[in-house]
Amino acid sequence: MRYKLTVSYVGTDFFGFQVQPDKRTVQGVLTQALSAAFDAPVRITGCSRTDAGVHARAFVLLLETEGNNIPPEKIPLAVAPFLPTDVAVTFAERASDTFHARHDVVSKEYEYVIHNAPIASPFDHHRVWQVNRRITDEGFERMREAARHLVGYHDFSAFMAEGSQVRDTHRTVHSLRVLRDGEYVRVFISADGFLYNMVRIIVGTLVAVAFGRIRPDGMDEILTLGARVRAGMTAPPDGLYLNRVSYTDILQ
Amino acid sequence: MRYKLTVSYVGTDFFGFQVQPDKRTVQGVLTQALSAAFDAPVRITGCSRTDAGVHARAFVLLLETEGNNIPPEKIPLAVAPFLPTDVAVTFAERASDTFHARHDVVSKEYEYVIHNAPIASPFDHHRVWQVNRRITDEGFERMREAARHLVGYHDFSAFMAEGSQVRDTHRTVHSLRVLRDGEYVRVFISADGFLYNMVRIIVGTLVAVAFGRIRPDGMDEILTLGARVRAGMTAPPDGLYLNRVSYTDILQ
Repeated sequence: MRYKLTVSYVGTDFFGFQVQPDKRTVQGVLTQALSAAFDAPVRITGCSRTDAGVHARAFVLLLETEGNNIPPEKIPLAVAPFLPTDVAVTFAERASDTFHARHDVVSKEYEYVIHNAPIASPFDHHRVWQVNRRITDEGFERMREAARHLVGYHDFSAFMAEGSQVRDTHRTVHSLRVLRDGEYVRVFISADGFLYNMVRIIVGTLVAVAFGRIRPDGMDEILTLGARVRAGMTAPPDGLYLNRVSYTDILQ
Repeated sequence: MRYKLTVSYVGTDFFGFQVQPDKRTVQGVLTQALSAAFDAPVRITGCSRTDAGVHARAFVLLLETEGNNIPPEKIPLAVAPFLPTDVAVTFAERASDTFHARHDVVSKEYEYVIHNAPIASPFDHHRVWQVNRRITDEGFERMREAARHLVGYHDFSAFMAEGSQVRDTHRTVHSLRVLRDGEYVRVFISADGFLYNMVRIIVGTLVAVAFGRIRPDGMDEILTLGARVRAGMTAPPDGLYLNRVSYTDILQ
């Protein structure tokens, strides 16, 4: 059987999604729990790797197993007793024979949450980037202006962690919205794919723009030069949430 | 010096606000941190006790000390380095000579959060009451109707934990709102005071009403009889948040 599962997890206590020896990973924990529910070995392919500390509201994976034929709508409750409290399977459906959780992605949306206040909220621990220095209204407007320069098809080399090995560093950012909501600044970014640390470097750069260390129209030059050192810092994983993964209809 | 402090805490890992020997309490942790910041003994009087597991967004306390004369606006940052991540001082001001954190309260607002969905969200662990069975639209309307019966000046004996010792069990509920927000049901209750476990028993009773175990107009009879057994269960502490404490202006 092949199933398409949607899972949600708090990334704080995981060394990311992907299995690693002797580390607590989401894939490791899910493999164990799903094997117990299906009473058979299972194979899991995720829609992406997420880093240690990064959260997911709706991560998608392909589950393959020869075990019990559990109807998809029963899977979330069937696996729940075997899962720890920081991960849940929220939805399941049958997957076609050709569905691939990573290759068939057409778009992913991440949200990055900044708490911009002098004092951190206890409710936000490990769930936001705490930025104590105030982002002014002008700084916020500069962030929005800078964000507009990144939308579209570009070479995002400057927004990729150094040392990454990918052939093609071009990606299409479908939308990049920066919203203010009381003490919180939220960045929503949707793209056909992301380079390693791309969202976190974009957010670090937008915050550098907010504080006047980079000019909003400097974004074009950063893109053109492709030099990681010209962009801002890598924002911490704590504020990053994978919100949604979209697939072409025909391939599901 | 006398200061009025506003504090915020995640109640999960505390045995409530009030100091108890050999237990981790909010008052204990704050006393230690404030003593360090003021470099002198401090005395703390809270606006109420909160139970183990109950959260606060804006709990108010009186701080008395003979230590360093720290300007009030500097206190939140001055104490932050001495506090653990699950409690923060968010605001401070001078308190008058007559201010009393508990006696001078004119109104407190609590929020109770129910997650009504078959699968718990990992992000909500210990922060909501997880109610798996669906509350229908009709059930939700019955909750709202029942809530209306509780507003006003009543003897709330039926909504008090058995064994409590208080002379006067009358309280005035100023407002009691039940709101639905996607998978969440939120109960906001404001009153001049609360009996022991009163909010949690009211919420347990409203959920019993939602599922048809108690009729909405049965609330009047429960109030009149004053019998704890006629009301619903005590909802767990995890969903309860102290949102706001109001004082008469002249006494601050």
